[in-house]
Amino acid sequence: MSETSAPPLSSTPRTRLNRAKNRAGTDRVQLHRILDEALVCHLGLVLDGRPVVLPTGMGRDGETLYLHGSSGASSLLAAGAGAEVCVTATLLDEVVYARSLQHHSMNYRSAVIYGRARAVTGRDAKLHGLRVLTEHLSPGSWDHARGPSAKELAGVAVLALPLDEASVKTRTGPPADDPADVAEQPAWAGRLPLRRSWGEPVPAPDLAPGTPVPEHVRRRVR
Amino acid sequence: MSETSAPPLSSTPRTRLNRAKNRAGTDRVQLHRILDEALVCHLGLVLDGRPVVLPTGMGRDGETLYLHGSSGASSLLAAGAGAEVCVTATLLDEVVYARSLQHHSMNYRSAVIYGRARAVTGRDAKLHGLRVLTEHLSPGSWDHARGPSAKELAGVAVLALPLDEASVKTRTGPPADDPADVAEQPAWAGRLPLRRSWGEPVPAPDLAPGTPVPEHVRRRVR
Repeated sequence: MSETSAPPLSSTPRTRLNRAKNRAGTDRVQLHRILDEALVCHLGLVLDGRPVVLPTGMGRDGETLYLHGSSGASSLLAAGAGAEVCVTATLLDEVVYARSLQHHSMNYRSAVIYGRARAVTGRDAKLHGLRVLTEHLSPGSWDHARGPSAKELAGVAVLALPLDEASVKTRTGPPADDPADVAEQPAWAGRLPLRRSWGEPVPAPDLAPGTPVPEHVRRRVR
Repeated sequence: MSETSAPPLSSTPRTRLNRAKNRAGTDRVQLHRILDEALVCHLGLVLDGRPVVLPTGMGRDGETLYLHGSSGASSLLAAGAGAEVCVTATLLDEVVYARSLQHHSMNYRSAVIYGRARAVTGRDAKLHGLRVLTEHLSPGSWDHARGPSAKELAGVAVLALPLDEASVKTRTGPPADDPADVAEQPAWAGRLPLRRSWGEPVPAPDLAPGTPVPEHVRRRVR
């Protein structure tokens, strides 16, 4: 997972942003960070000529993004059969209040990946993909919970999407008000941070009373 | 915005969920709640035969979802010209830890809307759409900040998407472990809530010192 040896992000016509060039980053480190921080992505594909966008679990290993879902879901089947996909992950960081409505905005980080996914097959490769997905959703669970049976492994679809064609778009910082508005408008201007945090773990109703919350869950809350 | 007079959600083949029927809701009230709580949606469309998914600001008024962006953005132009779109909004509520990796999951609420958007034109209609969008992102800003000039109004694209063909999918509750795992597996099982909250407002660096945080921003934090 060496960050330094990774190729720069592509700059194909699709990822060469036309708008807001100052928000376009080509930083692979930033791409990785967005994908590692976001818990879900949105998988887009074309089914019967029409766009479909579904929230999807994901996990990154180096320059591969793993996706998964039920092996019977039509969107996953189409994506695993080599359909072109667009995967987008978005982190909303702040609402930006400006003196003008025009410059109200959001501070955010988003990653868009284009490409064709491949269905991961073979026991070892599938277990590796599932491990990456599990450790993204719930770090520490892979070694704590019961692993998949052969039947369970067959019932889940794991897709692998290379991070070859990708773009990152972010906005940070204060509002970009017009100088005349800064001078003349009395409205408040600034940023309102949107925080994400973990709440207290809630044990399952059928968990044996007194079962302690394990360290891998506990440390996520701290 | 009467909830009771709204038609039930459609059940076309696309929105008739094949998987996890117990997670499929057809509750229009729930659809509205998801769209009102999510701050951004993901707009999917087909450009040059390929899927594109972009994070997009939104705001709901009754059975209309307004979307907006720069009037020069190719995705907005295509969507406003009547291309089919799929708009998905997802709220992630909890990570679900189970005794088996197979039943690790997420509690979430997602809304998927299919249809064709129309570009909102005409000064009054566009102002109405912008008001809905503004009050969704930053309630109270419409009456507090400077309104759009004619030039600014011309430079923004507002789209209106009817909530005719939509589906809601949610998962709530504890892990759904197999009975054998509940009896035999020692792993912890439960839910870890993901909280969203507003942090303290950060004034713009060029805001006059001593400018108070207005009530419409302040009350969001409380």
